[in-house]
Amino acid sequence: MLSKNQIKLIKSLGQKKGRQQNGLFIVEGIKGISEFLKSNYKLKNLYTTQSIFEAPEDLISEISEADLKKITALKNPNTALAIFEIPESISSQEKGLIVALDAVRDPGNLGTIIRLCDWYGVKNLVCSHNTVDCYNSKVVQATMGSLTRVNLQYVDLVNYLESCKTDTFGTFLEGENIYTASLPTEGIIILGNEANGISKAIEAKVDRKVTIPQFGVVKATESLNVANAAAILLSEFSRRTIEM
Amino acid sequence: MLSKNQIKLIKSLGQKKGRQQNGLFIVEGIKGISEFLKSNYKLKNLYTTQSIFEAPEDLISEISEADLKKITALKNPNTALAIFEIPESISSQEKGLIVALDAVRDPGNLGTIIRLCDWYGVKNLVCSHNTVDCYNSKVVQATMGSLTRVNLQYVDLVNYLESCKTDTFGTFLEGENIYTASLPTEGIIILGNEANGISKAIEAKVDRKVTIPQFGVVKATESLNVANAAAILLSEFSRRTIEM
Repeated sequence: MLSKNQIKLIKSLGQKKGRQQNGLFIVEGIKGISEFLKSNYKLKNLYTTQSIFEAPEDLISEISEADLKKITALKNPNTALAIFEIPESISSQEKGLIVALDAVRDPGNLGTIIRLCDWYGVKNLVCSHNTVDCYNSKVVQATMGSLTRVNLQYVDLVNYLESCKTDTFGTFLEGENIYTASLPTEGIIILGNEANGISKAIEAKVDRKVTIPQFGVVKATESLNVANAAAILLSEFSRRTIEM
Repeated sequence: MLSKNQIKLIKSLGQKKGRQQNGLFIVEGIKGISEFLKSNYKLKNLYTTQSIFEAPEDLISEISEADLKKITALKNPNTALAIFEIPESISSQEKGLIVALDAVRDPGNLGTIIRLCDWYGVKNLVCSHNTVDCYNSKVVQATMGSLTRVNLQYVDLVNYLESCKTDTFGTFLEGENIYTASLPTEGIIILGNEANGISKAIEAKVDRKVTIPQFGVVKATESLNVANAAAILLSEFSRRTIEM
């Protein structure tokens, strides 16, 4: 049985304020929880309808399907819900490629960008304070466990970029063609907001403007989805390391 | 004022069955509607709170904000809702790159893949019958108008691939490294379902298995988001045309 206080706590973690006040966040489903249990993240509580997880016994509560339905944020809850502690953010070491996000708002976009960073071995993802919270349950869900392998920091992005020594790259409609530009193995790839792109304040900190050229006959004025732009840029930066 | 029958029709277009029975689909918002008005799509009706569209007068109905709220599928409706006719699908001419989707289910993924095709000049997108309907309002919304410039067909994908003369490419965890493989300027890029990848029946029709290599130290078993995989593949196939 779940107590009223437990339910209240779990519900509060659906909001950023609740997560920040408690220093906790939620992971749902067998696959996601297993990934977090294998990582350095600290488990606080695990509520499950089946005893299939390897975790300290005193942190596991077996609950009914009905109880799981009371606490899940999913339409179709999958076996378990776990609460983990939000770790201290570690400041980046500025080695290799870094991805920086300027006001990316969609949880699905942030989630898939975290997966991309994991895939391309990008250890550090730096986010402006107005980027969506990475402990938002939709982000956690979309990362498919990759969140455990990528270091995220929320920073004042203008200050951060000012203090960086490596080149910063921003995607714009006009800029160097990414397919023919020389690209370094270290640098910061900046991606902007879904609707407005990179903000003026951040644009001022961009060392090199790059563009993903359009191949269509009709040059549409549209932009690419930000996660797709991230995919293409990370692919392009990374493939150069093979050629060398 | 909207009649009960008009409201009923519009509501029915929220479902695939209703769209198929009526041969109609919905586009919402100023930007999207403007793109469709500029295209070959045939307007059936336009409901708007402001007279800002260039369209035959007899097809435009000015309605109140309250009426717009009755018919919208959006949380924040934007000025107008239009009904367009679903065109006859044109069979592909098999020139240049073709993208084929095997049971892609998420509307957002299909929408961003259509945008990618538009960006990379892919004229033909071929979908298995169990791929999400491209006239689903979430897909239309996510395409940002690109749907007007890409030709979509829903087909029996096994038959389709059998009858094609160009090479078919499928992404798998094991395969030729896409960064070092020789890639043609014509061919069919096959992308699979979000959870299960390319199905066995379609795998049997793949001429060349390719892989997007992972660069992380930890080789995660995770896959990439299907739209991101599409982005990387289209980028890689297209960039070769520059080098030549």
